[in-house]
Amino acid sequence: MELPSRLIEAAVDQMASLPGIGRKTALRLVLNLLRRSDEQVNSFAESFQLMRQGVRGCATCHNLTETEECSICVNPLRKEHVICVVEDLRDLLAIEATGQFQGRYHVLGGVISPMEGVGPNDLNIESLVTRAATIAVHEDGEIIFALPATMEGETTAFYLFRKLSSNNLKVTSIARGIAVGEDLQHADEATLVQSLRQRLPYNN
Amino acid sequence: MELPSRLIEAAVDQMASLPGIGRKTALRLVLNLLRRSDEQVNSFAESFQLMRQGVRGCATCHNLTETEECSICVNPLRKEHVICVVEDLRDLLAIEATGQFQGRYHVLGGVISPMEGVGPNDLNIESLVTRAATIAVHEDGEIIFALPATMEGETTAFYLFRKLSSNNLKVTSIARGIAVGEDLQHADEATLVQSLRQRLPYNN
Repeated sequence: MELPSRLIEAAVDQMASLPGIGRKTALRLVLNLLRRSDEQVNSFAESFQLMRQGVRGCATCHNLTETEECSICVNPLRKEHVICVVEDLRDLLAIEATGQFQGRYHVLGGVISPMEGVGPNDLNIESLVTRAATIAVHEDGEIIFALPATMEGETTAFYLFRKLSSNNLKVTSIARGIAVGEDLQHADEATLVQSLRQRLPYNN
Repeated sequence: MELPSRLIEAAVDQMASLPGIGRKTALRLVLNLLRRSDEQVNSFAESFQLMRQGVRGCATCHNLTETEECSICVNPLRKEHVICVVEDLRDLLAIEATGQFQGRYHVLGGVISPMEGVGPNDLNIESLVTRAATIAVHEDGEIIFALPATMEGETTAFYLFRKLSSNNLKVTSIARGIAVGEDLQHADEATLVQSLRQRLPYNN
């Protein structure tokens, strides 16, 4: 597909550099931008530059923030000794949306994936080990793994567990099991096995 | 979903303003940008601004171009008296990719759609009528409709046909029929009817 202008070509290249956006979709999006006014396109473009310049990782938990520490880390009502380990901001937001978690977070920035060339050194693991050591003195100190239920997520959890086990600290993982509203017959076998193994006393 | 920064919020809003991009997808794309360097994000953003400033509609056919007229309109090898009418640049590119069309184009910039509030005055129709009048003197002058096979496309073709019929000019439409490689049993009824009506002498 030869585009009629190098400028459109460059814009399509940039749009197609986003994950999950192919060149056909990129062209559709770019043509939509071409129908907007100069001011609208400037606002579009500048929003990403302003974000890149103004947003950084929280010095403690690597959540995204515009200040030194994120709003969760500076909130005295959130339990400092309970740390939920997540892959990225979207998982943090999903847990926050439940309104049920009173602890703090640690954002790894990814999961270990040899296939994609992501090793432990590419993730925010050292700072988690340091934080774990400081909360180990607390009798209710706990690290909760809320990592994806994939091969990469499990590998990462296992790696972290070995790193953290030297501390005398409770390490847990969120439950794997039948999703609420799901039929057993439609659940995959591995999930069903996990849900049986992690069965709980019936107390409702 | 409450985001941890107004700057991220603004970037997600802008990304989600693109057609077919929901807020969840927008957040995924924006987080990808946040993992890039300042220079990379600047290149990303500036590509759209440079495009908006440098690209305009061709004065003759409304194809996109960086100059007064597009490369097809200034190409003396392309037949000036055969004009293929398309909805937008993507359809033009699809036809160009076949390498089989030797005429020129007219890009409408949309199709008539009362549902979406697009009327004839929103499209590049007057300039097509003017061009049609100039090629009507040519004995092989022809206007080819290559418009979508939708209600809106058909409406637009009918409207254009009435506008153009005062000229003594051949007006054609690309064929509707069974797509190459398609089974008859999987074709919809309307397509099958059209393919029967538009049957051709067998001469292969």
